[in-house]
Amino acid sequence: MHVDADALTDFRRDLHQHPEPAWCEFYTTARIVEELRARDVDELHVGPDALEESDEERMSLPDQATRDEWRQRAEAAGADPDLVERLDGGNTGAVAVVEQGEGPTVGLRVDIDGLPIREADADDHVPAAEGFRSENEGYMHACGHDAHATLGLGVLDAVRHSDFSGTLKVFFQPAEERVAGGGPMSRSGLLDDVGYLYAVHIGLDHPTGEIVAGMGGFLAVSGFEVEFEGSPAHAGAHPEQGDNAIQAMAEAISSMYAAPRHADGPTRVNAGVVEGGTASNIVAEHAAMECEVRGATTELMEYMWEETGRVVDAAADMHDVEAERSLNSRAPSAESDETLSAVVADVAENVEGVESVLDHDDLGGSEDATYLMNRVQEQGGKACYVGLGTDHPGGHHTSEFDVDEESLVIGVETLAGAIADIGKDRA
Amino acid sequence: MHVDADALTDFRRDLHQHPEPAWCEFYTTARIVEELRARDVDELHVGPDALEESDEERMSLPDQATRDEWRQRAEAAGADPDLVERLDGGNTGAVAVVEQGEGPTVGLRVDIDGLPIREADADDHVPAAEGFRSENEGYMHACGHDAHATLGLGVLDAVRHSDFSGTLKVFFQPAEERVAGGGPMSRSGLLDDVGYLYAVHIGLDHPTGEIVAGMGGFLAVSGFEVEFEGSPAHAGAHPEQGDNAIQAMAEAISSMYAAPRHADGPTRVNAGVVEGGTASNIVAEHAAMECEVRGATTELMEYMWEETGRVVDAAADMHDVEAERSLNSRAPSAESDETLSAVVADVAENVEGVESVLDHDDLGGSEDATYLMNRVQEQGGKACYVGLGTDHPGGHHTSEFDVDEESLVIGVETLAGAIADIGKDRA
Amino acid sequence: MHVDADALTDFRRDLHQHPEPAWCEFYTTARIVEELRARDVDELHVGPDALEESDEERMSLPDQATRDEWRQRAEAAGADPDLVERLDGGNTGAVAVVEQGEGPTVGLRVDIDGLPIREADADDHVPAAEGFRSENEGYMHACGHDAHATLGLGVLDAVRHSDFSGTLKVFFQPAEERVAGGGPMSRSGLLDDVGYLYAVHIGLDHPTGEIVAGMGGFLAVSGFEVEFEGSPAHAGAHPEQGDNAIQAMAEAISSMYAAPRHADGPTRVNAGVVEGGTASNIVAEHAAMECEVRGATTELMEYMWEETGRVVDAAADMHDVEAERSLNSRAPSAESDETLSAVVADVAENVEGVESVLDHDDLGGSEDATYLMNRVQEQGGKACYVGLGTDHPGGHHTSEFDVDEESLVIGVETLAGAIADIGKDRA
Amino acid sequence: MHVDADALTDFRRDLHQHPEPAWCEFYTTARIVEELRARDVDELHVGPDALEESDEERMSLPDQATRDEWRQRAEAAGADPDLVERLDGGNTGAVAVVEQGEGPTVGLRVDIDGLPIREADADDHVPAAEGFRSENEGYMHACGHDAHATLGLGVLDAVRHSDFSGTLKVFFQPAEERVAGGGPMSRSGLLDDVGYLYAVHIGLDHPTGEIVAGMGGFLAVSGFEVEFEGSPAHAGAHPEQGDNAIQAMAEAISSMYAAPRHADGPTRVNAGVVEGGTASNIVAEHAAMECEVRGATTELMEYMWEETGRVVDAAADMHDVEAERSLNSRAPSAESDETLSAVVADVAENVEGVESVLDHDDLGGSEDATYLMNRVQEQGGKACYVGLGTDHPGGHHTSEFDVDEESLVIGVETLAGAIADIGKDRA
Repeated sequence: MHVDADALTDFRRDLHQHPEPAWCEFYTTARIVEELRARDVDELHVGPDALEESDEERMSLPDQATRDEWRQRAEAAGADPDLVERLDGGNTGAVAVVEQGEGPTVGLRVDIDGLPIREADADDHVPAAEGFRSENEGYMHACGHDAHATLGLGVLDAVRHSDFSGTLKVFFQPAEERVAGGGPMSRSGLLDDVGYLYAVHIGLDHPTGEIVAGMGGFLAVSGFEVEFEGSPAHAGAHPEQGDNAIQAMAEAISSMYAAPRHADGPTRVNAGVVEGGTASNIVAEHAAMECEVRGATTELMEYMWEETGRVVDAAADMHDVEAERSLNSRAPSAESDETLSAVVADVAENVEGVESVLDHDDLGGSEDATYLMNRVQEQGGKACYVGLGTDHPGGHHTSEFDVDEESLVIGVETLAGAIADIGKDRA
Repeated sequence: MHVDADALTDFRRDLHQHPEPAWCEFYTTARIVEELRARDVDELHVGPDALEESDEERMSLPDQATRDEWRQRAEAAGADPDLVERLDGGNTGAVAVVEQGEGPTVGLRVDIDGLPIREADADDHVPAAEGFRSENEGYMHACGHDAHATLGLGVLDAVRHSDFSGTLKVFFQPAEERVAGGGPMSRSGLLDDVGYLYAVHIGLDHPTGEIVAGMGGFLAVSGFEVEFEGSPAHAGAHPEQGDNAIQAMAEAISSMYAAPRHADGPTRVNAGVVEGGTASNIVAEHAAMECEVRGATTELMEYMWEETGRVVDAAADMHDVEAERSLNSRAPSAESDETLSAVVADVAENVEGVESVLDHDDLGGSEDATYLMNRVQEQGGKACYVGLGTDHPGGHHTSEFDVDEESLVIGVETLAGAIADIGKDRA
Repeated sequence: MHVDADALTDFRRDLHQHPEPAWCEFYTTARIVEELRARDVDELHVGPDALEESDEERMSLPDQATRDEWRQRAEAAGADPDLVERLDGGNTGAVAVVEQGEGPTVGLRVDIDGLPIREADADDHVPAAEGFRSENEGYMHACGHDAHATLGLGVLDAVRHSDFSGTLKVFFQPAEERVAGGGPMSRSGLLDDVGYLYAVHIGLDHPTGEIVAGMGGFLAVSGFEVEFEGSPAHAGAHPEQGDNAIQAMAEAISSMYAAPRHADGPTRVNAGVVEGGTASNIVAEHAAMECEVRGATTELMEYMWEETGRVVDAAADMHDVEAERSLNSRAPSAESDETLSAVVADVAENVEGVESVLDHDDLGGSEDATYLMNRVQEQGGKACYVGLGTDHPGGHHTSEFDVDEESLVIGVETLAGAIADIGKDRA
Repeated sequence: MHVDADALTDFRRDLHQHPEPAWCEFYTTARIVEELRARDVDELHVGPDALEESDEERMSLPDQATRDEWRQRAEAAGADPDLVERLDGGNTGAVAVVEQGEGPTVGLRVDIDGLPIREADADDHVPAAEGFRSENEGYMHACGHDAHATLGLGVLDAVRHSDFSGTLKVFFQPAEERVAGGGPMSRSGLLDDVGYLYAVHIGLDHPTGEIVAGMGGFLAVSGFEVEFEGSPAHAGAHPEQGDNAIQAMAEAISSMYAAPRHADGPTRVNAGVVEGGTASNIVAEHAAMECEVRGATTELMEYMWEETGRVVDAAADMHDVEAERSLNSRAPSAESDETLSAVVADVAENVEGVESVLDHDDLGGSEDATYLMNRVQEQGGKACYVGLGTDHPGGHHTSEFDVDEESLVIGVETLAGAIADIGKDRA
């Protein structure tokens, strides 16, 4: 199989040095597109062309000033200004298409964004020791999406040089860390002819040499914020003139947790961040909170979304306050198809470096690859989320996180092998 | 002054033996009317004629079965069946008018209902010892309204035999104990020409021989109940199918107490009685509570009425439950006019047996004579609530309560004297 | 196999006519014991001998007056007064032991109590039509425990006449409907040598001819009540003097539902019944609620028990009120052992009248046979809960409930066959 | 009377240019002390000598860094470094004593701190137009304490040149805006021989030429903050592992507002500022709120302080969270003595420029001069809070606030006149 380990490492390190937050992956997208152009793929959908048309209300989109700042940083780091211009408005990400004869259309989804975490600079942190630590201070690839993007490119190369017969589509998805990019990309139309979809995640406490052939147990999630707007008043002189935004929020918090739970399965609710008011002697005019609900199924999450919505509205009414709820992130639940994970398991057994293959594991958290998986499954296709073990010194989302680059080759061979197998089976 | 002490005592003891609850004063009204007919007063308004026309929604009206039972009791005790028939529907009470030449129209309001309290039967309880204990077991004149009704009759007699020039109206008001009768009687039209109104209460921790010339500090009050109707569900198998009436009620209770208080003065709120649900493993379909709000002014009470209404509705909405609130009792606040209380104080100084005259005292509770007082004051007239001291062995609303019958004569002389003085001043 | 269908029917109908509530099964126990005495079983443990020694704090024990009333009823219906005397204090139930050679000790647990439900008297209700409707008006065998007790006796007879080698113990357990009798009987010592235990339930929406070889999914449950004791005060005159029991209870209710849920599995909480207070104008001195918590495992139930306990205490502290929590019912979760359910499935296939055998089904509710099952399993033994289908016209716990008596024979043959098989395997 | 209007204006403008927040009045104190030294007063108590000895836990004391910054600013603006050094630790303020023969000891209390408000720079704002706008950007004398300090100096001069016989003590109190300085200064010992105390406030919506001879209606107040410390957990993966600080705070907020109100008079409670948590998917480890309680009397405020303390502790217990409450500010209630206000009213009638004298008015807010007033009154002395009208273009605590400097002379003449009168009466 065609795999250039050095090229993989170089590309991963380039991205690692330039982590960018959700919807601001200007440098990252530009670098991916440059590489794809160099390969002369059959189709290349960049930025807005890889997302749903109407992006007016994209969740968690940073404001103009923030996006502009990241555009400038991307250009300063060497990104092609014309390419960056095409990503205007935070329309990041790309989809590459390789047509290689008759056969099934197979997708691979990888995500590309970084996190607002300051990277470790200790000597035992490899990126620091070997000179590819983040150049965007305060931001970091602390969840391995640099490796994911590299896998996308590596698998594309390997499949192009394989006997795969069919069409391969690689989805470089933005804004996974805010659980925001999966929805718009799933509705881009580019998935409509995909019969088989793989997604991949590195690490997750599995060591280098271990492959999880199919993951499930994704909790559906909705992250949201609520703004409460009341009327201020002097708390000593005229308490009756106030409409107390803090009191309304407190009521909403207590009552959201008390929502009746559903017999069909686990649900979650949390009010994780609150702020409000200006002074101890003023009835608060404004308060706000950031919350989330989850469910073992999309339906259960939606049940909690409805319940908490009613609670928030009633708590606001109770105190004559206005409440406005807005969605920050959303992802459905999903499950890997066994037929696809069986292909991965078969292939992985024969990949050099693989020492252990697990048929299935639960993620236990949320991730928006589920949007793309659901899309394909709803069309009658199959989807599978693959876990790629890597020795990672720190936990995910910590400043000590790093990946073992050995696992990149294992990942490319496993995924490309599985894709090629699907092609063969179906040709 | 014409006062027949024995007649007063006899009449009071007759009423004391036949205590009747609010809107069921069939025997009491019939006995009063019989006495008034015997005196050949100029006008006599009985039952429905003494109340506002539309009585469909009279607060705290007992159901038909309860009223029927009390009608039968009244007749069994010797009440004139034709008279009782006129009080059908629980339209109890009466108003007597005495026209005695040119002069002002002066009103006297007394209340006539008893309480659902079992009277003491110990040897040291005078009614028991002297054979006039309540014959309606479980009910008792434990607040002295038997004495009040007697004062109404006694004052009427004394004024008729005095040099008072003008018109006297005596209002025998039902249903004070439920704070329910004052409103309908105040809207009967019979107060519309009243320029001066006295109301009287016996006891209130003032001893025999003490007169409080003018009382105030009445808290405006609204008593209400709320019914919550949800949907039941098995709490183990399908909690999500329930709409929890108990949870909604709990929410309403907590939040009613947390309503912002008004800077203009004291307010009160209380949820005093609750019940709901059928089994620990069923999400409750039904719950109900009895509550009240008060205020130092009618406006403050109405403020709390609005606040708690919004809270109840929102708490119900929060749990997808229906809430229905209904008013059980209501009375405004009021204050005695100093010019009228000054007349009382002047007269009382010269009444035999009076040893102490207080110009003013606060009631600190609620009472619906305030409806009649407000009505007169709104028309430009004056009103005054008089406290008549009596040695009472037990507190009001206890089974040991009793009045010192000596105070009946003092009360008649003081009130009739004050009424006569008003007539003289104005003649 | 020795089965006397007519005798089964007669006995079941006798019990059906005399339903008795938990801890008051005087007639029922006496009748069972009479039958067992007639059979000359090897050991017979009656009432207190079949329960844990210390019964002072048995959950849900009715008061003396209630128990006395049921004792009198039992005697009036013909129960042996000496036997009833042995059940004094509500120590009902019995355990019969049959020793039949070398071999394992096998237990069968059946429950015997009725429900406070008025039985239907319509013509299409078989007990009414055929003259064996409940003679204890307002009480009814609406969950088939009359059939269960009959199965206990029928299986004992069948085993005695079979080639079973070993010891059979039949546990006639009281007070299952209050989830209260299982604990005391499980701690009687009589289970200590039991290596295999079957329990059985009729109906559960399975038709006549269907057997569920092993049931699971029992939610662990704790039913409890909380008494709140505060201090009364006049809500208008001195609200600050009250310690508000209703407010404390409302707080506890809202917050119990808001307890954080456990990631290990489903939990439940419910406040199903509330009452408190005396009048709308009195700060409530007393309030009480009946609640329950459940969990998919005993640990999860205990987690919720701890959480709600802390909430109740804190809510009481918040309002300077005393809260006392007492347990009304408790049952752990349990799961049937597959080896035992496999025996049932094998046997059932060959029982006449059996048309369908399900390997497993979830109960989805709670039941205290789990105490006995756990006891055996903790000792290294095996336990299995068998579902015996029966056509039942109304749902469980409705006044139209009835069983198809044809299923009694099927049940006896299946259970006795399974017990005999265990004896053979082990002999 | 000796009054140098120009000197008053100059000094007031100097202070106006250098507003300093509570406990950071380094420049202000230094300038006052320089002036007092120039006058050769009999005693001069500076900084720590004017406050209670133990100042470890002074409320609302800014941290070291903040205090150092203000010290540097003060020195840069020309304050004597040695003097500033004596105020180390934020021990600001001073007390001057003038002994002038036999007679009573009379005190005058003025406050000296500024506010964190940016001063207006519009042309119609006199300080901006005439060149004495705040040099400490973001801070401002927006409540007239620059004028108060000036009055303190002016009255001292006028009394020294009057026929007053006795001892005058002028208290230049720091940290009134945080309701924090009054307590420590009242416990300095310097009030112990004061028989008569005046305090003064300018403005309060009274125009130039109006004097309020005695003010009352001060609400007692306690400002406090509460820190809640729980345990974080992933809200999706392990909600049961968290101890939710936000939920505890929400509970505390709802329940503080629901505390039973006291029949003795108005009380207030407010949670004015909240913040907590770090992310929507994390159970919050930390939350904090700033609150206050008030009462018409000190006892009522203390009642609410106790009630809310119990609520906070119970809410924390309910969620297994630690709560720590700390006091930020406190002041008792107080009332002006009529004998002292009568003196003011008499004197004011004859002061040039005075057009209107009100005997009494309510402040309706809180202020910590009450600590000093209470101290004197508890010793058997008398105290009086005087309102000095001034035309002020913006409201208090707004960036447009300013005083009419004409009122300075009126204030000095009225207060010095009243003090002299006391001396004469008592000599």
